[in-house]
Amino acid sequence: MAKEDPETNFSEWYNDIIERTGLTDKRYPVKGLNVWPPYGWKLMRLIDERIRKHFEDFGYQEVYFPSLIPKSQFNKEAEHIKGFTSEVYWITKGGDNELDEQLVLRPTSETAMYPIFSLWIRSHADLPLKTYQIVNVFRYETKQTRTFIRVREIHFIEGHTVHDSYEDAEKQIADDIEIWKRVSEDIAVPYIMGKRPDWDKFPGAYYTIGADTFFPSGRSLQIATIHQYKDNFAKPYEIKFVDENGNTKYAHQTTFGISERLIASIVGIHGDKKGLIIPPRVAPIQIVIVPIPGEGVAEYSREIFEELESIKIRVKLDERDQYTPGWKFNDWEEKGVPLRLEIGKREVSEGKITYAKRTGGKASMPKEEFMHKVNSLLEEIQSELYSRAKERINSYIKPLHSLEGEMDFYPNYVYWCGEKSCADVIEEKTGKSILSTTEGFGKCIVCGREGQKTIISKKY
Amino acid sequence: MAKEDPETNFSEWYNDIIERTGLTDKRYPVKGLNVWPPYGWKLMRLIDERIRKHFEDFGYQEVYFPSLIPKSQFNKEAEHIKGFTSEVYWITKGGDNELDEQLVLRPTSETAMYPIFSLWIRSHADLPLKTYQIVNVFRYETKQTRTFIRVREIHFIEGHTVHDSYEDAEKQIADDIEIWKRVSEDIAVPYIMGKRPDWDKFPGAYYTIGADTFFPSGRSLQIATIHQYKDNFAKPYEIKFVDENGNTKYAHQTTFGISERLIASIVGIHGDKKGLIIPPRVAPIQIVIVPIPGEGVAEYSREIFEELESIKIRVKLDERDQYTPGWKFNDWEEKGVPLRLEIGKREVSEGKITYAKRTGGKASMPKEEFMHKVNSLLEEIQSELYSRAKERINSYIKPLHSLEGEMDFYPNYVYWCGEKSCADVIEEKTGKSILSTTEGFGKCIVCGREGQKTIISKKY
Repeated sequence: MAKEDPETNFSEWYNDIIERTGLTDKRYPVKGLNVWPPYGWKLMRLIDERIRKHFEDFGYQEVYFPSLIPKSQFNKEAEHIKGFTSEVYWITKGGDNELDEQLVLRPTSETAMYPIFSLWIRSHADLPLKTYQIVNVFRYETKQTRTFIRVREIHFIEGHTVHDSYEDAEKQIADDIEIWKRVSEDIAVPYIMGKRPDWDKFPGAYYTIGADTFFPSGRSLQIATIHQYKDNFAKPYEIKFVDENGNTKYAHQTTFGISERLIASIVGIHGDKKGLIIPPRVAPIQIVIVPIPGEGVAEYSREIFEELESIKIRVKLDERDQYTPGWKFNDWEEKGVPLRLEIGKREVSEGKITYAKRTGGKASMPKEEFMHKVNSLLEEIQSELYSRAKERINSYIKPLHSLEGEMDFYPNYVYWCGEKSCADVIEEKTGKSILSTTEGFGKCIVCGREGQKTIISKKY
Repeated sequence: MAKEDPETNFSEWYNDIIERTGLTDKRYPVKGLNVWPPYGWKLMRLIDERIRKHFEDFGYQEVYFPSLIPKSQFNKEAEHIKGFTSEVYWITKGGDNELDEQLVLRPTSETAMYPIFSLWIRSHADLPLKTYQIVNVFRYETKQTRTFIRVREIHFIEGHTVHDSYEDAEKQIADDIEIWKRVSEDIAVPYIMGKRPDWDKFPGAYYTIGADTFFPSGRSLQIATIHQYKDNFAKPYEIKFVDENGNTKYAHQTTFGISERLIASIVGIHGDKKGLIIPPRVAPIQIVIVPIPGEGVAEYSREIFEELESIKIRVKLDERDQYTPGWKFNDWEEKGVPLRLEIGKREVSEGKITYAKRTGGKASMPKEEFMHKVNSLLEEIQSELYSRAKERINSYIKPLHSLEGEMDFYPNYVYWCGEKSCADVIEEKTGKSILSTTEGFGKCIVCGREGQKTIISKKY
């Protein structure tokens, strides 16, 4: 059982539960570098597999580019570099030798990939190019680090595409929004997506779309970004193609970034006083079987275990004999296993299965029926989690009609005209940041001119 | 079609074919760092998936430890460090700041993992601990680099286990030898495995077992290593446990390393004048369908494609209309696709499939029959490749009875007493290195004393 309640003491609850359940080990001697024990890493890998599927369904191909980027290549796109220069790690020595050219440990891969893209792309027939990679990237964080949220070695999924026109890149962005929607459904995490204000876009991007989710603490967490680069990178990296009429043109590009923050969001959004709740689609253990000692229980439990394994359920049979069934119930609830089977004498004699959903609710049914229904039962838990999270998050976000008076910790909707000066007023008076603008129009809360619906929040 | 013949000009053939087929792109501006394009990366990932399965079948669990290791932690095991000190990359700066403590980019992960293992392990009940990870490791190579063979960023699969006794660690090594056998079967690559001489063991290890395979060039390539550490690392990293009698003891450890050299071995051992031959179990494309234009061919080809996809075959339908069927045959032969289907008017009218195996042989059969047999047909190609490779490699290795006279480029068996002085004579007179000793006894080729069967070879 978690020490704290996420609703009242989120930060302590979060730090405690991720380590207690084996998602991470924070005892590595460098701040911001965490160890992934088996349970946490398995969760990440299952999420990666879902992401791979979605990317590939949209024609992306996986690649792998080097982690080390020579300084000269890194320095080509001025605005981009400026955004990263204070937070890159520099490799200056190999063995006892000073390197002739210093190397950057990739903070993101534009500057590693684009010189090669410029060799791969010759004509319009080479376009679009749609690649992604799942890699470790590095940021020399000087801010306080927080596991899965702000770390120095990031588990990063990055899509990079190249197109023959701005319009084709825009279509890609629509695809990416759909990919992101599918990923978010897999982890049952609701989000609000919108355009970042200009000062908050990715360094070098033409514009940035961000997806944010919201924690019981009231703070928002950016969990995905999609960038339209236009030809901002194509120019310095010389990514050009010959079009159908024989004219040489610069390409247009987009990128798409997701990270282990997906795990932070699973923890923060679904968790409760008892511990984690992991959505069935990505749960390392979807079903745990807890035998309640009695005649024939061991055999019957094993039979159920094997049957579930044979239909590709990720199932665990907890045969540890040093713990009571009650202790095991708590243990697996804490670890967030979505479905628990309780198998005792009665289940054996009646040929039934008793199950308890981590989202609440307990029932029995004949084994055969259970086997037929198990996948829809797991999907039922998945959608319960999703709709519960949607409700909860919607309850956090209130419209704000005035900048006067006491502010709470929670995010708000306001209308904003788009001017930096009005944003400054909003941010100062509310203590919250402009996250993104989305559909919906009304009068700017500061100047009264026509404005767009805008979400503001305290950020991680 | 490859430019060269691997039998007569291996090195040029190798360098040409890996780039021409899209396994790698060598144009990255840092020597020894290569780009993995989609085809090469897919092959690596399919191999990784097989390895994961084998590790997990033997109770290993996947983890992920940080890439960056603080200097003080890295320096703990003296002999180990000495072995790596000339070839590690040092991170000395974060942003514009000199780091308080310099970081090593992991050359292998002992020094990242073992301080944490010492926290995870308290009692005999925590043992054995069996972990593996699939990561990028880095070596500042000063020797000539060669793609998939000697690179600066290595795709590395490393097993790390901890045991309560030397004997239990020895059992693990027997398991690892079996895991390795399964991996080698998946890539159809034969090998010779044996104990490395003392001066060639892994830095810090008690002993090292190496698996070598042999290329048409006559050179050997180390493709897997298994190490018995005894308590050599447990002592400096304080990995201790309380045994059943309440006594505190140092743990025993083993490791197991495999890398992208597996791809080098697939290329080098199966390839021929026409290009690559990729073993079906790991082929990114197991079957390519080449339609030979004619009435009903497009529809029939698509029907076959969908049927194969539905039974989880990795299949490609080559519908490009700018190329002739003959051109496509060559193209897919070069890329090493193990099975090609040729679908023309006759196949449509007779409801048949004509197939050509990349290992040779062409036949026709009714579609339905083909669908029933396709998996065994792929396994047939797999074992043809394997037995062909075994024969070929056996033909390279000749017993050597005298150190006098002209030496050829190929590996040999000799008997060797185990003394360094005799090894020096063998290596000097043959121009080959002692690889490993294996079962079989006879008189040392230098001193005539009792010796063990030993394989010598020119190495990559």
